[in-house]
Amino acid sequence: MPYPNLDRIASPADLRALERRELGSIAEELRAFLIESVSKTGGHLSSNLGTVELTIALHYVFDTPADRIVWDVGHQTYGHKILTGRREAMSGLRHWGGISGFPRRCESEYDTFGTAHSSTSISAALGMAVAARDRGDDTHAIAVIGDGAMSAGMAFEALNNAGDMEGINLLVILNDNEMSISPPVGALTKILARLMSGSTYNAARRVGERVLGVAPPVADFARKVEEHVKGMITPGTLFEEFGFRYYGPIDGHDLDTLIPTLQNLKKLKGPQFLHVITRKGQGYKLAEADPILYHGVSKFDHTAGIQPAKGSGKLTYTQVFGDWLCDMAARDPNVVAITPAMREGSGLVRFAQEYPDRYYDVGIAEQHALTFAAGLACEGLKPVVAIYSTFLQRAYDQLIHDIALQNLPVVLAIDRGGLVGADGATHHGAFDLSYLACLPNLVIMAPADENECRQMLYTAVRHDGPTAVRYPRGSGSGVVPEREMTALPIGKGEVRRKGSKIALLAFGSMLGVALEVGEALDATVANMRFIKPLDEALIAQLASQHELLVTLEENAVIGGAGSEVSRVLDALPRRPRLLRLGLPDRFIDHGDQAQLLASVGLNTAGVLSAIESAYPSNS
Amino acid sequence: MPYPNLDRIASPADLRALERRELGSIAEELRAFLIESVSKTGGHLSSNLGTVELTIALHYVFDTPADRIVWDVGHQTYGHKILTGRREAMSGLRHWGGISGFPRRCESEYDTFGTAHSSTSISAALGMAVAARDRGDDTHAIAVIGDGAMSAGMAFEALNNAGDMEGINLLVILNDNEMSISPPVGALTKILARLMSGSTYNAARRVGERVLGVAPPVADFARKVEEHVKGMITPGTLFEEFGFRYYGPIDGHDLDTLIPTLQNLKKLKGPQFLHVITRKGQGYKLAEADPILYHGVSKFDHTAGIQPAKGSGKLTYTQVFGDWLCDMAARDPNVVAITPAMREGSGLVRFAQEYPDRYYDVGIAEQHALTFAAGLACEGLKPVVAIYSTFLQRAYDQLIHDIALQNLPVVLAIDRGGLVGADGATHHGAFDLSYLACLPNLVIMAPADENECRQMLYTAVRHDGPTAVRYPRGSGSGVVPEREMTALPIGKGEVRRKGSKIALLAFGSMLGVALEVGEALDATVANMRFIKPLDEALIAQLASQHELLVTLEENAVIGGAGSEVSRVLDALPRRPRLLRLGLPDRFIDHGDQAQLLASVGLNTAGVLSAIESAYPSNS
Repeated sequence: MPYPNLDRIASPADLRALERRELGSIAEELRAFLIESVSKTGGHLSSNLGTVELTIALHYVFDTPADRIVWDVGHQTYGHKILTGRREAMSGLRHWGGISGFPRRCESEYDTFGTAHSSTSISAALGMAVAARDRGDDTHAIAVIGDGAMSAGMAFEALNNAGDMEGINLLVILNDNEMSISPPVGALTKILARLMSGSTYNAARRVGERVLGVAPPVADFARKVEEHVKGMITPGTLFEEFGFRYYGPIDGHDLDTLIPTLQNLKKLKGPQFLHVITRKGQGYKLAEADPILYHGVSKFDHTAGIQPAKGSGKLTYTQVFGDWLCDMAARDPNVVAITPAMREGSGLVRFAQEYPDRYYDVGIAEQHALTFAAGLACEGLKPVVAIYSTFLQRAYDQLIHDIALQNLPVVLAIDRGGLVGADGATHHGAFDLSYLACLPNLVIMAPADENECRQMLYTAVRHDGPTAVRYPRGSGSGVVPEREMTALPIGKGEVRRKGSKIALLAFGSMLGVALEVGEALDATVANMRFIKPLDEALIAQLASQHELLVTLEENAVIGGAGSEVSRVLDALPRRPRLLRLGLPDRFIDHGDQAQLLASVGLNTAGVLSAIESAYPSNS
Repeated sequence: MPYPNLDRIASPADLRALERRELGSIAEELRAFLIESVSKTGGHLSSNLGTVELTIALHYVFDTPADRIVWDVGHQTYGHKILTGRREAMSGLRHWGGISGFPRRCESEYDTFGTAHSSTSISAALGMAVAARDRGDDTHAIAVIGDGAMSAGMAFEALNNAGDMEGINLLVILNDNEMSISPPVGALTKILARLMSGSTYNAARRVGERVLGVAPPVADFARKVEEHVKGMITPGTLFEEFGFRYYGPIDGHDLDTLIPTLQNLKKLKGPQFLHVITRKGQGYKLAEADPILYHGVSKFDHTAGIQPAKGSGKLTYTQVFGDWLCDMAARDPNVVAITPAMREGSGLVRFAQEYPDRYYDVGIAEQHALTFAAGLACEGLKPVVAIYSTFLQRAYDQLIHDIALQNLPVVLAIDRGGLVGADGATHHGAFDLSYLACLPNLVIMAPADENECRQMLYTAVRHDGPTAVRYPRGSGSGVVPEREMTALPIGKGEVRRKGSKIALLAFGSMLGVALEVGEALDATVANMRFIKPLDEALIAQLASQHELLVTLEENAVIGGAGSEVSRVLDALPRRPRLLRLGLPDRFIDHGDQAQLLASVGLNTAGVLSAIESAYPSNS
């Protein structure tokens, strides 16, 4: 498909050289290009279609990159990437060696701040605005944040701080599309719904059109704009309470409203808040109709739309968790489930339907999720918190201070442990075993297959103390979970293969590789199952019978499971050699999971090679 | 001093058996007892004096412990402890073997939730309220939270979730004393100030007196109370926006307002928010005049008041940091400092005075603090974040995702690393080396003495990437910092004593003990200085010359510095034995620092004994 207008835009400067009336065709082509491009690479679609006009308007009105745009979460930045010189690179989006699906400072000077985890943009933009003020220049810092991301505490921390700052050029744009990844929840949703209800919103459109077209001298104009645009305001909104001037809501797909509004806001000083209404999937009927389906997509035919997956016949770990949760809830009325706005990703759709009274989507609020779970556990309930490894980092203190210290029986179902693939460095669950293993009272398990995942979750619910079951993204080896649930003995591993000289101690997802390496080297293979407590008796036994022990884990090798195996060995009278394999001490990029594992030596060839280097006598 | 009325109160049931008019004398005696008791043991004073009447009123009106009171932060619970059977135990407050300065579930059934870190109470109480609703009983859950604690994001996450919940008996009491530990900051402070300004507050007093005395039938009454009490409301407040019914502000020292207000609120359903105004230090003129001085006190003469400390002649590490920061700021205009509401505790008083334009107190908002720092660093500034180890846990994701991943030059000045003493398990900096060491790009240092602390901070500012300097609470060995600043070579330790057979590898605060043990055993002693990057060459050299290596660190032995030393040893052709000493795998109680260190074997005798067990051949 030809993109004659888009072809003219190599950078935002080219965009700014256009007449405003030419921007409509840019938007049209940018949207078409997005659909075509993402349908070939996979990636985030709905969110990017929703921000086409806003992206154009921001780069048209502001002097990027001198003016800083910080895109919250960052999965709405494909249009931004295309307009800032990365259109060609879109063909490699989220693929090994290609550009990231999120903004990255190392990728472009227009990517002022790397994002991916939600709700960081106001804090970062505030830092930039303060720095600009202090160096005495007039550049602007703009945070673009979704309504879902606004529910996270750190966004409020930033508003609270920013609203009290003087002389800063900070503009917060609320991109209100009534949706995080899961449907919106929480009081904030209702507040926003009130703001955009009925007459206010429609009137705003008209006011915007009427007032913002004119252009009198700046000082006078700014005052006028304030008065008139303030006419759009529902007084006493949340954001005004925090010291921001609130404008909107306006239609985020109407360039004729967006551009004059931004042009005028650019002239005002102090913390400004613009409420923009957009629709996820805008302009692509299939995505408009089902924005959740089109939120994150694999390759698909963009004419036919996404077809029902044929399925590999394998369950994902996420599905194993979701099925287990429903079965467990049927057995035990005390089981309740909590998600920080990840119903789909965490496999909770069926549970939410079947047990709506025991299902709590608390919004993007990991900190609250864990302490809320602690409160429920105090009353005898059995809360299961479904959370991605990378997002558990947000609730680390709550895990320590509210759950582990009080030894409360909260189950953490940690999805996306290890390398996640296309989402890359910001989303890998690379550190959890390290930051969890040091916490007293916590039992930590990692299943080697799907059935073990189910049984470990059951073991977790039965244990009277905090537990974590950490499983990888995607499917495993294809073991069908047994319907029956049987608790595993806490702290016991198992030997899966008997060999000689070398013993491989596999944690969780690494068992498959370990078994292959075991075959190749006639090595013993143990499925350790528990990172904490470790099976010290098994380790001692393996140590006494082998010359080299090798630990394998899909976690930072620093502080991971191998680290404690090492300490157990130190206490033995005779210590065999130990090789600790895991993720290296660097952040790991995006790519498919198999490629990534190979790149860090955690595939069969890599492990064989590492053993060969460390223990050449075996060759 | 005699306490004839207080003597009658062995539990809240005794309190509830009193006539309301008798409560005034209880308050008077409770306050006097608090002053006398805390002056003998040390502890938190101002906050406890401020909540005397509120504590009495809550236990008088609510059916504790069936009704759950969750005290945010928990350093205002001495009155609660005294009224719930722990008056005798107050003589051991915060001392080794005595009761905690914070609520603890294991200490009393009235302590429904352990607190200490701020802003957890609404989440926990919401969990309790939901559980009560679901089991169909009518008990209440009450969160008592200070205005400082309200600024933390997780309090907003909880409000956002709670305001959207139906049928819950949740009461949030905002204990507004215009002060966290540092003076209040942020937009919220202004909101609260507006709420309590002038006529609103005074009128509320009168309305409260007039309306709340009467007692018509409940249903009718509840409606009436709503109407009338709603008369007190400033419409459209922040809290109403979140779906709470807001009442107040009322005088938190007036039992005749507090009790009928609480009695009436008890009859209402749904999320309620009561704004109570109190004064820290109330009733003790010295503390009223200087609530910050009397916030946390050592033993003192309560008649004479706190006298200027004579001083040990030694600087605390906090002072070393504060002095360094001012000196550094004088040299480098790009240095700015950020504190999450810990100006006094972090040693920033002088910096705040001398460099007000480069000082950012962001409120109790650790998450925002780090990402705000990241934003400043993007613009070429050199932010120094002063933070306690235990509170850095709140910002773990921001450190990973916003700072380490982007390799931004933010300096973390981590105070209170290791065991802190009387504050106990919730405040020990026990895990930081474990949760930091696994993060790529981060340089981690721990000074062995005061001068090294200063030089490490300088080294950190000069390094172009994220750094952490982790120092202990209190003073060190008394080394006077050199005025001159000299950057240390990154990743290099030093040998402090040459011996044979045994080499002690000391990290940070453990050097003193290591030197004593070194003398006793004629062992080599290395001051490792860097946890990351480790001095691998030094480790290899020590390994080649000794039979036993011993790592010493005031951090969880799991995943700590010793863990990586072990991995370095594994890569060597000849591996000597390794003994890793650090904090054991359990939460450690309160007591004085020397007692605590002895209790975990991290004093000279303990280390000698551990070496003797592991390496008896030496004896």
